[in-house]
Amino acid sequence: VHLSEVSLASLELGPYSHFMQKEIHEQPKALADTIEQVLEQGFSPALFGAEAASLLGKVEGVQILACGTSYYAASVARYWIEQIARLPCQVEIASEYRYRDAVALPNQLVVTISQSGETLDTMEALKHAQQLGHDLTLSICNVRESAIPRASRLVFYTRAGAEIGVASTKAFTTQLAALFTLAATLAKLRGHLSAEVEANYLDDLRKLPGSVQHALNLEPQVKAWAELFSTRQHALFLGRGVHYPIALEGALKLKEITYIHAEAYPAGELKHGPLALVDEQMPVVVIAPNDSLLEKVHSNMQEVRARGGELFVFADLDSHFGESDGLHVIRTPRHVGVLSPVVHTIPVQLLAYHTALARGTDVDKPRNLAKAVTVE
Amino acid sequence: VHLSEVSLASLELGPYSHFMQKEIHEQPKALADTIEQVLEQGFSPALFGAEAASLLGKVEGVQILACGTSYYAASVARYWIEQIARLPCQVEIASEYRYRDAVALPNQLVVTISQSGETLDTMEALKHAQQLGHDLTLSICNVRESAIPRASRLVFYTRAGAEIGVASTKAFTTQLAALFTLAATLAKLRGHLSAEVEANYLDDLRKLPGSVQHALNLEPQVKAWAELFSTRQHALFLGRGVHYPIALEGALKLKEITYIHAEAYPAGELKHGPLALVDEQMPVVVIAPNDSLLEKVHSNMQEVRARGGELFVFADLDSHFGESDGLHVIRTPRHVGVLSPVVHTIPVQLLAYHTALARGTDVDKPRNLAKAVTVE
Repeated sequence: VHLSEVSLASLELGPYSHFMQKEIHEQPKALADTIEQVLEQGFSPALFGAEAASLLGKVEGVQILACGTSYYAASVARYWIEQIARLPCQVEIASEYRYRDAVALPNQLVVTISQSGETLDTMEALKHAQQLGHDLTLSICNVRESAIPRASRLVFYTRAGAEIGVASTKAFTTQLAALFTLAATLAKLRGHLSAEVEANYLDDLRKLPGSVQHALNLEPQVKAWAELFSTRQHALFLGRGVHYPIALEGALKLKEITYIHAEAYPAGELKHGPLALVDEQMPVVVIAPNDSLLEKVHSNMQEVRARGGELFVFADLDSHFGESDGLHVIRTPRHVGVLSPVVHTIPVQLLAYHTALARGTDVDKPRNLAKAVTVE
Repeated sequence: VHLSEVSLASLELGPYSHFMQKEIHEQPKALADTIEQVLEQGFSPALFGAEAASLLGKVEGVQILACGTSYYAASVARYWIEQIARLPCQVEIASEYRYRDAVALPNQLVVTISQSGETLDTMEALKHAQQLGHDLTLSICNVRESAIPRASRLVFYTRAGAEIGVASTKAFTTQLAALFTLAATLAKLRGHLSAEVEANYLDDLRKLPGSVQHALNLEPQVKAWAELFSTRQHALFLGRGVHYPIALEGALKLKEITYIHAEAYPAGELKHGPLALVDEQMPVVVIAPNDSLLEKVHSNMQEVRARGGELFVFADLDSHFGESDGLHVIRTPRHVGVLSPVVHTIPVQLLAYHTALARGTDVDKPRNLAKAVTVE
C-alpha cells in the first residue's frame, strides 16, 4: 500500500552507480514536485490539510521533534520560524523529549518530521506530546498514510519519491522546502508577510530546483576534494546560524557512509575547545555564505597553520576570499537568499558520496545502520 | 583587584603535578564554599542580589547564554529549571544568539554563565539581549566585579577560587551548584517547592561535597581505563536527559587536553548515524545512572561486538549491569538523586586527566587554547 505512488522505474538505478548518487541528482525534480502545490496556491494553510486554516491561526509557538537528519532539518526551520513568523520555536531530539516533562507553551504547534513516518522515537515523542495536552499536531513526512501522519491532525507530504539509500538526501532537502513553506504560511497568517515579501519567497522557491542543479554541477570540484578527504580519519565541519545545521548534516553524511569521524560545531565554538584537535590530520570544512564568518574562522585557524591545519570552504559566489596556502574554496554558483541552506546541502552530500567511493565503503548500506529506525 | 579573595597559597601546586589535577581535587571544598550561603539561607532570592526578590518573582521563562563548558552547565540547568521550577527554559551558544533576532518570551530571565566574567561572545550576547529589550539579567560568574556581572542586574558568584588549568573543572561543577540553586529558588517563588522537597534538596546539597569526594576516590579505577584510552584516536560519549550534557563535557575535556577526537551524542541518536563509526578503535563511553538507558544502548551495541566495539559505562551503585565481554563498568559509590550530574562529572574529568598523562600532552596549557576567550 505504501508503495502505491512509487513507480517501479524509480526503484531502478538507471545511469547511476548507487541509489544515493541517483537520489542526490533527483533533488531538483524532488524539490520541484514538492513545491508545485505551493507555487500554485501561495503560502496557504490548505497546503497542510482541511483543518489547517482554523488550527494554524491559533499557534503561539512551535515545538519540532525529530531524529537524525530530520532533526537537522528541524534545526534549520527554527531559524526560519523565529525570523520569518516571529514565533518562539524549539527543536528537540525525539528520544530526549519523550523521556522528560517539558514545559509546554500555550497553543504550541507540535511538528514531527520523519521520512518514513514510522520512526519509533518520533512516534513515541508525538504520543508523549499528546499526553502532555498538545492537540495542535503536524507531520512532515515522505510516505503517505504512514503511522505518524495518521496520528497527526495536519500533514504536509514531501514528494521526494522512494528513498532507498540509508543516508538521507532528497528527503532532507524536500523537508527543508516543506518547513520553509510552514514558516512563511505561519508568517502570513500572523500578518508578518507583506505581499512583496511573499512574492519574493515564491520566486526563491521557483528558482530553487535550478539553484540546486547549479550546485550539483560542482561535482567535479567536490570530487577532487574527496580524494584528499578519503585519506583522513577525522574532520571538523563549521557553520553559523541557519547554516550550522548544514554543517551537522555534512558531518553526519560523512560519518554514515565513509566511517570518517566528522563532527560539526557552531563556528564561534572552535576556540572554546575543538581547536586543540586541529592539525594536518583534521581538515576543517566551513559552510561560509558570508565573509565575516570566514574571516573569524580564518583568524582562529592562523595559529594552527604551522601544524598543517587546512580549511576547506564552501562559499557564495560573492565571497571575496580567494584560495591561499591552507585555504581551499569552492563557490556555489549563485546567491539564493533565505533558501541558502538547501543549496549548501548539495556539496556536503557530494563530498560524502565521493569520499565513500574513494574509500570503497558500501554507500547504500552502511554498516550497522537501518533505513527506517523502527526500534529503540 | 580580581585576585583579592584568592590567597597566594591557592596559586601553588602543593602535592599535585598539575593545576588541573589540583582543581579536580579541590571540588569538594569549592562546592562547600559555593553552597555555604545557600545552606544558611535556604533557597532565598537574596542569594542573587538585593533586587532579586522583586525581579525573580516576575520571571515567566529563562534563556541561558554561554560558551564551551559553561554552555554544558546551562544545558543541565535547562532540565532542572523545566522540571523543578516548571518554567520554559532555552539555552543557546552565545556566539550564535548574538547574531540572530531571537523571539523573546515576555518576562524572560536572561542568564549568562562565564567563569572569568570576561568571555567576549557571552558579553556580546548579553548586550544583544539587552538591545532586544531584555532587562531581567543574571550572571553566574567566578570572578568578582568582572565585566559580565557588572553589566547584569543580578549575580551569583561561585566560590571555586582561582582556576588556572585551561580545561575548566571546579568552575563547571560550582556553576552547576549555582544553577541548581537558581532552579530551586525560582520553584519556591512560584509555589512549586514544598517545605519537604526544599528540605530534601538542601540535604542533597549538604551531602554533595561528600558525594564528590566519593567519586574522586574512583581515581585508581578510572586511571586503569585511561591507559587503554591513551592508545585510541576516537571516542563516543553517550548520555540521556540531564546526563547528556555530562557526556558532552566528558568529550570536550578529552578533546581539549588529550587531542583524542571524542564526540558526545544523546544515547537515542546512536542508531541514527554514529553507530556506523563504532569498531575496536572507537570506544563508547556511557553515562548511565539508570539501567533502562544502558539496556537500550547495550542492545544497539550487540551487533558491533563482532567488530570489537567496547562499552565503558559509568553507572550508579544500584545499577544491575555487571561486567561482561566488551562491557566495562565503574560504579559511582552512591546515588545522589537530582544532583547526579555533578557527581558524574568527576569520573569523566579524571578520565581526561589520566589519559593526557599517559599520552604526555601539556595538561594545563593545551595547544591552541586560551583560558579566557576574550577574542572573537
